[in-house]
Amino acid sequence: MQLFYSEHISPTTILLPEEESVHCTKVLRHSIGHSIQIVDGKGTLYDAEIIEIHKKQTLCSIKAAHNNFGVHPYFLRMCVAPTKNIDRFEFFLEKAVEMGVNEIIPLQCDNSERTIIKHERLERICISAMKQSYKAQKPFIAPIQKCSTILTNKYEGVCCIAHCSDSEHKKSLFPLITKGISTTILIGPEGDFSPNEIALAQQNNWTEVHLGTSRLRTETAAIAAVHSVYVKHFE
Amino acid sequence: MQLFYSEHISPTTILLPEEESVHCTKVLRHSIGHSIQIVDGKGTLYDAEIIEIHKKQTLCSIKAAHNNFGVHPYFLRMCVAPTKNIDRFEFFLEKAVEMGVNEIIPLQCDNSERTIIKHERLERICISAMKQSYKAQKPFIAPIQKCSTILTNKYEGVCCIAHCSDSEHKKSLFPLITKGISTTILIGPEGDFSPNEIALAQQNNWTEVHLGTSRLRTETAAIAAVHSVYVKHFE
Repeated sequence: MQLFYSEHISPTTILLPEEESVHCTKVLRHSIGHSIQIVDGKGTLYDAEIIEIHKKQTLCSIKAAHNNFGVHPYFLRMCVAPTKNIDRFEFFLEKAVEMGVNEIIPLQCDNSERTIIKHERLERICISAMKQSYKAQKPFIAPIQKCSTILTNKYEGVCCIAHCSDSEHKKSLFPLITKGISTTILIGPEGDFSPNEIALAQQNNWTEVHLGTSRLRTETAAIAAVHSVYVKHFE
Repeated sequence: MQLFYSEHISPTTILLPEEESVHCTKVLRHSIGHSIQIVDGKGTLYDAEIIEIHKKQTLCSIKAAHNNFGVHPYFLRMCVAPTKNIDRFEFFLEKAVEMGVNEIIPLQCDNSERTIIKHERLERICISAMKQSYKAQKPFIAPIQKCSTILTNKYEGVCCIAHCSDSEHKKSLFPLITKGISTTILIGPEGDFSPNEIALAQQNNWTEVHLGTSRLRTETAAIAAVHSVYVKHFE
């Protein structure tokens, strides 16, 4: 089943924006009177009927609304340093949305080789993955932020930093994840977090974690972390 | 640390083949007398010294051998239908090698849109991921095989099929994975396994499993399955 996405929702009608409208009426050849399903990115799926088709937009009337559609049963914030090759970060993003994530904070770390991201492109990937995996909720993607800023923020719940340096304090991530408690996980860039960043994490009581004995790439570690939270809620 | 790969290993020397030799001596500018590390894809890492450099090959003498280097503590066979867009299957393969997998069987299913794979290309991806993730063992990649053939084979240990149809017998994969027991997991193509394939799995006592409530793409499901086995051994 094909889902459409719109942010333009009134109490009785929904306006499909240009890209979605063209896909709906030109590519899939839907016409007036057809029933379609539209998600708002905030957790609601609407059953709707097409009532007007214009060149750049399509107007639909709302028939039913389903709240919390495809919403995952946990809160997960992933703070991940974008990879030098952005395809790898985008792949992580797609997989994270498919499994379920609430907030993505791209991190600018001391060892980051990439400090610029195209926010609009990442949004588009999120929307596409949300529709593909049949969910109505889209994660919030924050602007890129300094790792030191995030490390001095206070977040509720379990807050972990997955780094590759030796540390006697490191624990396995999986047993730390707890149902009903939000999780925030930091994943560093290709060159790992710097000693200063790790020290700052320790000072601010972040829990140092590892993801098993394999040496994982940034995007693999990030996918593994999301899946750890996901699987914990379905084991 | 950079690893090199060779299959040409005698009791005292190792010959780097053309691609590895060029990378070692031309790109990284190693010369005679330098120490390098070479893996054999079978689980052994060698400390070696370069003794002769030729145009298309480099000869090294073995200084030490480390068995079971970076070898994961489980046996996992993944049978996965290659995706229509092969990049997605290749991404799964890379992630599987990074975490740890022993055998990959590409599946030809009733609903497969892709029935041809380039074996040599998949081998190259495996070798590259093995070196990148600092392992000495490379999974065996079987030729593509009919799903019905695999379903009627007898494999030791836990044998699961992850399909998307409704079935009262479906269990969550994660609790089924057991330390010390081999695992074989089947992941279907974009259109899922056919009703005939699911019936054949039931007749042959494959355990029907799900991977949580999210609708995952083929490669995401395959990565999630590998990570489930991986995390079970490090929780």
